[in-house]
Amino acid sequence: MFRKRHPQVGAAPGTLVIPEDAPPPRIRQILYSVDGMHVDRRIDDLDDLEEAPGSGVSWVDVQGFGDERLLVELAEIYGLHPLLLEDVVNVPQRSKVELHDDNLLIVLRMVKVGDDAEITIEQVGIVLGEDYVLTFQEKYGDVFDPIRKRITAGHRRFKEKQADYLAYAIADSIIDHYYPALEVLGERLEDLEEEAVATPTTTVLQKIHHMKNRLLNLRRALWPQREALHSMVWEPNTLVGEEVRLHLRDTYDHCVQTTEVIEMYRDMISGMLNTYLSSMANRTNEIMRVLTIVSTIFIPMSFLAGVYGMNFKDMPELKWPWGYPMFWMIVTFLAIGMLFFFGHKGWLHPQDHKQDEPE
Amino acid sequence: MFRKRHPQVGAAPGTLVIPEDAPPPRIRQILYSVDGMHVDRRIDDLDDLEEAPGSGVSWVDVQGFGDERLLVELAEIYGLHPLLLEDVVNVPQRSKVELHDDNLLIVLRMVKVGDDAEITIEQVGIVLGEDYVLTFQEKYGDVFDPIRKRITAGHRRFKEKQADYLAYAIADSIIDHYYPALEVLGERLEDLEEEAVATPTTTVLQKIHHMKNRLLNLRRALWPQREALHSMVWEPNTLVGEEVRLHLRDTYDHCVQTTEVIEMYRDMISGMLNTYLSSMANRTNEIMRVLTIVSTIFIPMSFLAGVYGMNFKDMPELKWPWGYPMFWMIVTFLAIGMLFFFGHKGWLHPQDHKQDEPE
Amino acid sequence: MFRKRHPQVGAAPGTLVIPEDAPPPRIRQILYSVDGMHVDRRIDDLDDLEEAPGSGVSWVDVQGFGDERLLVELAEIYGLHPLLLEDVVNVPQRSKVELHDDNLLIVLRMVKVGDDAEITIEQVGIVLGEDYVLTFQEKYGDVFDPIRKRITAGHRRFKEKQADYLAYAIADSIIDHYYPALEVLGERLEDLEEEAVATPTTTVLQKIHHMKNRLLNLRRALWPQREALHSMVWEPNTLVGEEVRLHLRDTYDHCVQTTEVIEMYRDMISGMLNTYLSSMANRTNEIMRVLTIVSTIFIPMSFLAGVYGMNFKDMPELKWPWGYPMFWMIVTFLAIGMLFFFGHKGWLHPQDHKQDEPE
Amino acid sequence: MFRKRHPQVGAAPGTLVIPEDAPPPRIRQILYSVDGMHVDRRIDDLDDLEEAPGSGVSWVDVQGFGDERLLVELAEIYGLHPLLLEDVVNVPQRSKVELHDDNLLIVLRMVKVGDDAEITIEQVGIVLGEDYVLTFQEKYGDVFDPIRKRITAGHRRFKEKQADYLAYAIADSIIDHYYPALEVLGERLEDLEEEAVATPTTTVLQKIHHMKNRLLNLRRALWPQREALHSMVWEPNTLVGEEVRLHLRDTYDHCVQTTEVIEMYRDMISGMLNTYLSSMANRTNEIMRVLTIVSTIFIPMSFLAGVYGMNFKDMPELKWPWGYPMFWMIVTFLAIGMLFFFGHKGWLHPQDHKQDEPE
Amino acid sequence: MFRKRHPQVGAAPGTLVIPEDAPPPRIRQILYSVDGMHVDRRIDDLDDLEEAPGSGVSWVDVQGFGDERLLVELAEIYGLHPLLLEDVVNVPQRSKVELHDDNLLIVLRMVKVGDDAEITIEQVGIVLGEDYVLTFQEKYGDVFDPIRKRITAGHRRFKEKQADYLAYAIADSIIDHYYPALEVLGERLEDLEEEAVATPTTTVLQKIHHMKNRLLNLRRALWPQREALHSMVWEPNTLVGEEVRLHLRDTYDHCVQTTEVIEMYRDMISGMLNTYLSSMANRTNEIMRVLTIVSTIFIPMSFLAGVYGMNFKDMPELKWPWGYPMFWMIVTFLAIGMLFFFGHKGWLHPQDHKQDEPE
Repeated sequence: MFRKRHPQVGAAPGTLVIPEDAPPPRIRQILYSVDGMHVDRRIDDLDDLEEAPGSGVSWVDVQGFGDERLLVELAEIYGLHPLLLEDVVNVPQRSKVELHDDNLLIVLRMVKVGDDAEITIEQVGIVLGEDYVLTFQEKYGDVFDPIRKRITAGHRRFKEKQADYLAYAIADSIIDHYYPALEVLGERLEDLEEEAVATPTTTVLQKIHHMKNRLLNLRRALWPQREALHSMVWEPNTLVGEEVRLHLRDTYDHCVQTTEVIEMYRDMISGMLNTYLSSMANRTNEIMRVLTIVSTIFIPMSFLAGVYGMNFKDMPELKWPWGYPMFWMIVTFLAIGMLFFFGHKGWLHPQDHKQDEPE
Repeated sequence: MFRKRHPQVGAAPGTLVIPEDAPPPRIRQILYSVDGMHVDRRIDDLDDLEEAPGSGVSWVDVQGFGDERLLVELAEIYGLHPLLLEDVVNVPQRSKVELHDDNLLIVLRMVKVGDDAEITIEQVGIVLGEDYVLTFQEKYGDVFDPIRKRITAGHRRFKEKQADYLAYAIADSIIDHYYPALEVLGERLEDLEEEAVATPTTTVLQKIHHMKNRLLNLRRALWPQREALHSMVWEPNTLVGEEVRLHLRDTYDHCVQTTEVIEMYRDMISGMLNTYLSSMANRTNEIMRVLTIVSTIFIPMSFLAGVYGMNFKDMPELKWPWGYPMFWMIVTFLAIGMLFFFGHKGWLHPQDHKQDEPE
Repeated sequence: MFRKRHPQVGAAPGTLVIPEDAPPPRIRQILYSVDGMHVDRRIDDLDDLEEAPGSGVSWVDVQGFGDERLLVELAEIYGLHPLLLEDVVNVPQRSKVELHDDNLLIVLRMVKVGDDAEITIEQVGIVLGEDYVLTFQEKYGDVFDPIRKRITAGHRRFKEKQADYLAYAIADSIIDHYYPALEVLGERLEDLEEEAVATPTTTVLQKIHHMKNRLLNLRRALWPQREALHSMVWEPNTLVGEEVRLHLRDTYDHCVQTTEVIEMYRDMISGMLNTYLSSMANRTNEIMRVLTIVSTIFIPMSFLAGVYGMNFKDMPELKWPWGYPMFWMIVTFLAIGMLFFFGHKGWLHPQDHKQDEPE
Repeated sequence: MFRKRHPQVGAAPGTLVIPEDAPPPRIRQILYSVDGMHVDRRIDDLDDLEEAPGSGVSWVDVQGFGDERLLVELAEIYGLHPLLLEDVVNVPQRSKVELHDDNLLIVLRMVKVGDDAEITIEQVGIVLGEDYVLTFQEKYGDVFDPIRKRITAGHRRFKEKQADYLAYAIADSIIDHYYPALEVLGERLEDLEEEAVATPTTTVLQKIHHMKNRLLNLRRALWPQREALHSMVWEPNTLVGEEVRLHLRDTYDHCVQTTEVIEMYRDMISGMLNTYLSSMANRTNEIMRVLTIVSTIFIPMSFLAGVYGMNFKDMPELKWPWGYPMFWMIVTFLAIGMLFFFGHKGWLHPQDHKQDEPE
Repeated sequence: MFRKRHPQVGAAPGTLVIPEDAPPPRIRQILYSVDGMHVDRRIDDLDDLEEAPGSGVSWVDVQGFGDERLLVELAEIYGLHPLLLEDVVNVPQRSKVELHDDNLLIVLRMVKVGDDAEITIEQVGIVLGEDYVLTFQEKYGDVFDPIRKRITAGHRRFKEKQADYLAYAIADSIIDHYYPALEVLGERLEDLEEEAVATPTTTVLQKIHHMKNRLLNLRRALWPQREALHSMVWEPNTLVGEEVRLHLRDTYDHCVQTTEVIEMYRDMISGMLNTYLSSMANRTNEIMRVLTIVSTIFIPMSFLAGVYGMNFKDMPELKWPWGYPMFWMIVTFLAIGMLFFFGHKGWLHPQDHKQDEPE
């Protein structure tokens, strides 16, 4: 539930920590410029990387960290500070925006909703330079295909913009993907609420707590992101232009909205705990009620049967010709009286929570 | 419970998202100026829109977003930034106040209390320009008729003011409508509290949680609004004059009051949860009490009946002439003693919470 | 539980809202100056209002808002802004301190403890001008008599001071009256705590929640007051002198103290809820204990009686001469053994919470 | 539980409120200077007060406020502002540090741990002037003897310092005395925790709440003190030198530590409430278990005894020669089976919480 | 649970408090410089301490405070302020960063995970000077061996740096050691959660509270550390260079991460309390269910047996030839009917929480 790939204690800072089973890097460069020029290719040898054309932008996307030498080499080509490289490779780091001389490091968390509605969180490191954007992802697969398509499709609007606009588009795409994830969680919450009423077992309670922990994790991912985007909008630097900041304000607003939804979900979870406890107490009540009804009906009747089982020499009732039928009349009368009493108390009706629906 | 009309991920920012069933726009322009001039008409063709006269104000109200082309055209006429247009059309956005070059975007949440006391929340986008105010509403129907009436009625006071005063009047009207909504909620809360005492079923608990979620939603709508109004009062810009800011301070105060009432309601809800749980525990107590009273009265009596049902050869009591009446005397005495004991414990009285009224 | 006299929605700001049954205004003017001069009279006609003498102060106190025309006229005489007049007449407003050109508006909440220890909250609007103080109260009766007495009694110390000192004296008097109110509430809290232990009924729970709501209301009244006084001490303006600010710092300190007491009371209330729930659980325990003791003593005895009521042909015990007395010996022994067992468990002693006193 | 010696409402500010039974003031002046000079004497007549020698310091300690005239006279001698005098005499005030022209008022709370480990809180008003320190205490007895001893013992280090160092030493001594008080409370908390497990009566709950209230009171005393010390360290004034500020930073750190311990204690208290409720629920469980075991063992056996007590004409078992012993065998077998069942459920073992110790 | 080695109250500030059983100091000096020079030796006599060479660094590590004279002497050699010495010797102090003229005091908390996974917290005082670093530890043994190894191993990178880099490396190493400690705690939390479901005894509750207190202690250690590191990164001073501040930003990020994990753990603990209470309620339910099933099955059967044990003269059923078998048929039928009823209610199945696993 908690993991950090930290270097050996005391190791020199800047040391990269790459797990054994890290997949080998797949590098892809996209170049485009306002005059319509457009290149998109897989890079196997770093020497093939090209510089961005005059007024164009170069986007280098690295997926998989399984080759330390290659990452260091790439960092050298773009003049990245060793600490910056550490931040994008030794995941997970807190989301943040940091200015390093010539480039801006943006660390965000991308959520992906899998086919089985499972939500995974992955770090994306974005490095914004004068005319390039580097993105670093630990695993293959991302949520940026629509952006690539917009570039490829030759939207003039996109190609006119600078590198900062590309970085914004990537960040915006990451934040937008929180919405479907929140919808999935919202559906699960509704299912859980029903379960909490219908079958208040400890299993359901544990599901509720697991959901709570998942929300906590999302929240931990989102809050620093909110701060990061805030500083990206408002902190002065030369890399992010005014126009892009205007767009980022929107992205920031969306990020705030998602955190608010998470907070609302957390409130709903705590409401569910109440529902759960109440359902359990209802159960106990129901069990008690059955016991009480059966016991209080039969105990007086049994007493009377016991009385007429006594061996006293002189018990006149025993000799009455209608004694035995009268006994049955009396106990029937007693039983019916008790049932009326319980009916009056409303204890004979089944739990009403299955019939009634809340408004 | 949570919805956002977000464009396809990766779509160019500024893309409008208009649902299939959006009603076609109804546009209405009101023009007035200090010299008493006054026009109010339905606009079907945007070419009919007139500029505000010399020292006058033009109010263009758009209800329904079912025609993207027309909205874009309108935006072009008034020189609105594409992001601004996105903010007013892709509802819901967080409430905010944003300065865009020549105009001020104000996003607020309007509440309407329907005939069946149902509360709906709708976004109103207000764009304040030099001499015009645009309002954007997703659905037909709003709460601005009194303002229209004041303009029509020819209040000099109104016609003397600039566009910023009109924007203020609209915002003020929106905030003022929270009061009747809060009163409706307050009445429901009182009903719920009674129910929580009288019939503590899981249904009532769910009603309480639904009410809590509704308050959470209102709160989510109000808090950003409070910030937005605060920045509208205090942040410098040339569009909002000093006199109007004085009025806005009052509106802001009212907004603060409503958030405080919401907070108070939330406190009351959590009190209701306690009442509910206590009522349930009371029920269990009552069931237990009945069981205990009946059992402890009859169990010793049954034992005695069992004793005199034994077949020992030599049980002197059985032969006493007054044996049987004495048995009845003893068990009656036992029963009365038990009743006294329970009476002393206060267990014979019914639940007092239905008689007593809290002070 | 929540009320706001808001004007009709969309009405022009500054519209006064005066309820039908508002009492007619009683106006009283007190004039005094350092040279001992002193006038105190009832004003029936506004033309009778006099200006403050050279270095003197004029205090106009208005109680009851039943005459809109007169209030507006008074506002005109003293040059009050329409929004200011609205703030003092359309009660309740949030406590605040607002600078309006020539005068300072101070809105505070006055608490009065009635004869039956009932606490009422009323708004007092104070308008501080160069040489006058206006006070506006919705109902007759206030807590300022000691101030009037100090003026009348001719304390030189008072008459030397300017209008700001009078405004301070009024504010100070309002804050000081929270102390007796808090003492009354403190006594009620202690009564409630005893009740919560002795008779944990739902009625008591509701009393606790009503007390909690009352504290919430007081808190809502006090917190903005605290801010208001803070800004009155620290925000620069020409109306409040340095010497008076020194005094106001003390008043502010007292206001902080009262909010702290309220917070402490709120903590005590939540403790009471625990006591209440614990007392209820104790009750259930006691009921269960009685049931368990009686049942477990008699059930085995009844079994034995049942055994010797059987009709087996050959049951030797039945023919023993001492069989019947032995039966009684055995069941007595059983009963005593059970009682020892329960005594050992500590279940025979009554609830200890009535004897023991907490240290 | 809450007390404020406030003057009559509306009384002139600066009015001293001295209770009837206030002890008469005992005044003691200590004079010392760097050249070793040292005087320590009881002052009965204020005319005996001496000024501090050239580079020396005068410490006037007043214990008991039973003589208003004398206090006012003393205030005049040292030029104290009437509001300042009110703050030190009308106890309790919030802890604070206030600059009054020529002197600095420091209001702190001193805790004393009595012989019976009872903790009392008393206000100490410290007035720091150019070359003097005045201390005001409501009751006789304080915690400053070690300071007096250090002065008397002629520590050069002490005599070299100015009045600000003496004020610091007094404040430091007050804060240091919170440590033993917190240790006493810590021991009590541990006792309470044991009680909450062993005997979960309502009395214990009330003790827990009283402890909680005591912690709340300490907290109320400490937080403003923390602020006061903070402003004493950081707010510029000419009375407190740089060297002393360095020392005060340490005192401030200690004050922060004590508030943190209080917060930790509060967390422990809330943990205790859980333990208490859990112990109570355990009790109910135990009672239920006994009832269930006894009932379920004997109820089937009683049924069988009832069966063979029936008077059907033809019940073959009754005539079997081994019928009666077989009956006993069957019921014994039933009882043993039930015991195994309960043993399997783990219900036969006593509450394990008395044997096991938490790690 | 709470300890402070505070000097006697009123003692002169700067007094060292050294417990009787403090181990004698072990001093070790490491010297290194960029030109590869490197010395590492045990210092028994303070006269053996050497100054750092030209552009080199001297690291003096003191473990054990058992010799006051020696500590004071060392402080004099390096010109440490008596208050600074007090802060590093009189442990524990709050974590902080304080500038004292020529050197910077950094007080941090080091955690060590022992062989038995026991976590201990120890204070490390770091004093950073122009060309030296002093570290003070109360007990032998620390977590700095990897740093010593990096120096010894002759990493050029390390030797090029100044004293501030060494101080950073030490602080970084301390923070990095929180990760394994948090992993150990995480595992314990998972164990506890299982226990809370399986065996909800008061012992488990107490373990949960002890874990909670341990987390509270860690939190108390971490939060001031976070502030300290923050001020070390951002507060201007000449001792910490720009390059090192960049590295410290990373350390600060890690510190923030650890506090976030602690907060997450605290949330999990409160979830565990819910699980615990729910498991206990489940237990009560189960006990009740067994009682109810057995009672309600046998009570009606016993009544019937009682009926046919009555001695009425004329009970026809008793004389029927098939009376006795019919009795058995009826009671068997009753019992089966009841079992169906309970099966329908789902009361016959064992607690499902042992079979089901949460997803």
